[in-house]
Amino acid sequence: MEVVLIGSGNVATHLGLALQAKGITISQVYSRNVLNAELLAKKLDSSFTTDISDIYRDADIYFYALTDSAFKSVLREIKMPKGIQVHTAGCIGMDEFEGFTSKFGVFYPLQTFSKNKPVDFSQIPICIEGNTPEVQQSILELAKQLSNKTYIVNSENRKKLHLAAVFACNFTNYMYDIASDILKDSGFPFEIIQPLITETAEKTKSINPYDAQTGPAVRMDKKTISTHLSLLNEAPDLKKIYNLLTKSIYSRHKKN
Amino acid sequence: MEVVLIGSGNVATHLGLALQAKGITISQVYSRNVLNAELLAKKLDSSFTTDISDIYRDADIYFYALTDSAFKSVLREIKMPKGIQVHTAGCIGMDEFEGFTSKFGVFYPLQTFSKNKPVDFSQIPICIEGNTPEVQQSILELAKQLSNKTYIVNSENRKKLHLAAVFACNFTNYMYDIASDILKDSGFPFEIIQPLITETAEKTKSINPYDAQTGPAVRMDKKTISTHLSLLNEAPDLKKIYNLLTKSIYSRHKKN
Repeated sequence: MEVVLIGSGNVATHLGLALQAKGITISQVYSRNVLNAELLAKKLDSSFTTDISDIYRDADIYFYALTDSAFKSVLREIKMPKGIQVHTAGCIGMDEFEGFTSKFGVFYPLQTFSKNKPVDFSQIPICIEGNTPEVQQSILELAKQLSNKTYIVNSENRKKLHLAAVFACNFTNYMYDIASDILKDSGFPFEIIQPLITETAEKTKSINPYDAQTGPAVRMDKKTISTHLSLLNEAPDLKKIYNLLTKSIYSRHKKN
Repeated sequence: MEVVLIGSGNVATHLGLALQAKGITISQVYSRNVLNAELLAKKLDSSFTTDISDIYRDADIYFYALTDSAFKSVLREIKMPKGIQVHTAGCIGMDEFEGFTSKFGVFYPLQTFSKNKPVDFSQIPICIEGNTPEVQQSILELAKQLSNKTYIVNSENRKKLHLAAVFACNFTNYMYDIASDILKDSGFPFEIIQPLITETAEKTKSINPYDAQTGPAVRMDKKTISTHLSLLNEAPDLKKIYNLLTKSIYSRHKKN
């Protein structure tokens, strides 16, 4: 099987490495950014190009790991090859391929990727979709080579999954970032809060998050809440976030 | 050494178990709730009481693991014994003991505790404080018996630490809760998002949260953001949270 990777960011990198580890050849990497393209091609022992018209026409599968806007501009310019085209995005409909090609689908790994942090792809849920039963089957088989957790998910549900992921990952990470800032201001090392972060995440494996909710908001401990708010006097943005989340947690638990 | 536990909730339970595991005898458990008092006393092989005037007078150390308001009412009623008195709260000043007793301090384990989930106390940061060097030393020595991570922290900084913990634990857990609801609505099992939660938390060990930030907000991907917002049309509270956090992440990364 011949694979072309379109994109050279975190998703393209980790996906390429995972495919390579399964003995699947990456023929070519395309990226607008020549440095990134070359770097990834080197890692994957593949060729690379920065010219859309040079993208190989005979690969079996093309992975688009691009931002929304880059995805559309490549799609408009590319002379559509015969292989299966899939994108890896959580929030782009499969139908974006329509009119550009005949065999297409989605290959969405539900994980957060950072450049220099290896991940175990076999544990990453992969949500796939194909425009025909045959195409879907091909994508599913490939997904199963990489991961033990594959799901067939339509575009509407995938968008909801992506929304859930924004809360569970991006917004969660922002909570860590805010905590990190508060700690820095008081001279604490970030490590002091590490066991708490680990345990909070770990807990979701055995207790559902609704039942696991602790803290001043859920018990409406007004004294603590007002102490916290006064500590945030110099940070009106954080105070707003604290207030909104506290009220929201309180009303969620009050009405249930 | 003789220990009295005042309280029978999650903190009292896990603290009692950790002390017991180190061979320290819990002499008595006090709680207003007779069922909880009896249950915990049974676990700890200690006696129990629900009557403040029956609390032992000769223990070496008294741990108050109570809510803010319960703490104050017990403090007013208790005939102050000779031993060291410590509370375990993140957001109560040490000075609350003043006028009630002469040897006092704080023993704050920076962790989230759930009743039926065991924790490894040796990995929990314990923040202590004492009203005299001698008292502080005694509390520190006890803390060191339980944990490899002890910190001397004054009340002002402990409150900030507690505030950071609210973001890193309570608000984070609420993000998981929201994600869980969105998944449930779309028929996904919570497990699908588990690897993402684990990885997001795990990442903080090697990358600081500011640099680890990913998602539509940090790259101001307007199309994705507007798709997400439209998915939240039926949930105005969540839409508000999504909007506020997205704007906040965006401006934090824009100005840096």
